[in-house]
Amino acid sequence: MYLPTHFNEIDPSEITTLLERNPLGCLVAQTEQGLCANHIPMLRAPSGALIGHIARANDLHALLAPKAEVMVIFKGEESYISPNLYPSKQDHHRHVPTWNYQVAHLYGRISFQHDTHRKRAVVGQLTKVHEARVNGAARWKMSDAPDDYIGQMLDAIVAFEIEVTRVIAKSKISQNREPRDFEAVKQHMQQTSRDMLAQRMERLPR
Amino acid sequence: MYLPTHFNEIDPSEITTLLERNPLGCLVAQTEQGLCANHIPMLRAPSGALIGHIARANDLHALLAPKAEVMVIFKGEESYISPNLYPSKQDHHRHVPTWNYQVAHLYGRISFQHDTHRKRAVVGQLTKVHEARVNGAARWKMSDAPDDYIGQMLDAIVAFEIEVTRVIAKSKISQNREPRDFEAVKQHMQQTSRDMLAQRMERLPR
Repeated sequence: MYLPTHFNEIDPSEITTLLERNPLGCLVAQTEQGLCANHIPMLRAPSGALIGHIARANDLHALLAPKAEVMVIFKGEESYISPNLYPSKQDHHRHVPTWNYQVAHLYGRISFQHDTHRKRAVVGQLTKVHEARVNGAARWKMSDAPDDYIGQMLDAIVAFEIEVTRVIAKSKISQNREPRDFEAVKQHMQQTSRDMLAQRMERLPR
Repeated sequence: MYLPTHFNEIDPSEITTLLERNPLGCLVAQTEQGLCANHIPMLRAPSGALIGHIARANDLHALLAPKAEVMVIFKGEESYISPNLYPSKQDHHRHVPTWNYQVAHLYGRISFQHDTHRKRAVVGQLTKVHEARVNGAARWKMSDAPDDYIGQMLDAIVAFEIEVTRVIAKSKISQNREPRDFEAVKQHMQQTSRDMLAQRMERLPR
């Protein structure tokens, strides 16, 4: 990814937040059939590995060699930025349109896991996180479903773990603009409910 | 991409809408440095080609051979779907969490374009589309900026065109659920402002 220094996101807590708020990662691999992408909810485990699962019917687990290199893309909010947003435009008109966004690309080596115990653990962790987030105390639990049904569901998936070897992230949030233009963009982010971009701009040391 | 028949999006107008509403594509390539992704606003030209531009300082244009195969991912709205959403859960509890989303993956051969005339045309088309969308009659035009500044900006970019050879798209919108569960998910999409997912569900023949 093209990553000018001023857009380089190096704050680990920002990257963690980006992944937690945008857990549907895009898992990209180069296979003998060409480039391939799958959109998969993932979590970062305490070990730093990304965990998730795919359908057993998804041939990705058969196409990739053990420990194959993959890239996972997590994308946050985005916004078109019109030159009209910049107060300084009135003075010199030296602006062009751009796009603001936050992304993280995690590279690593993927291993697929077929044993039921491991699959149950991965599904359990994903469920716990997402249900706590949307349903709180009324959260759905795996134990709400009959055992035979959960068994069938686990048979239909393959778990995976990606040992992360490299993380690059970009917060493209008008850092390279003069203060009055930066403030105007931040207000626009607030007004258009780009809360994550607005909050990231708030936290930027300036 | 794993693409069960019931999630296969084959309606060209749906795919066109997805690209128009989510123009920040993810341009993926396999390079000698490994997998690489850049987030770039793109348009589909009347020819069917994807057009856009990257920074000249982005070495992608030097790393890729002429007509190299690339993949571009356009992603629309998404939503975690809790089993709690399904009315039928009360009857049999045979549900697990999932994620709904819309994506399109366009494959093609990329060519980079360095001549100023072509770069100006690409920038002009992108500007026209996005400014009309957000600013209507008050839209910013390239001619608002001084010629020397636009010249500098054009010098700092490289245009590209991707001749599209294959399109696959997925609308994962609970098509495989029984009618009462489908309706409940649709209502949840409406209530949580997932307008595009809700509208796609409305249009689904059932």
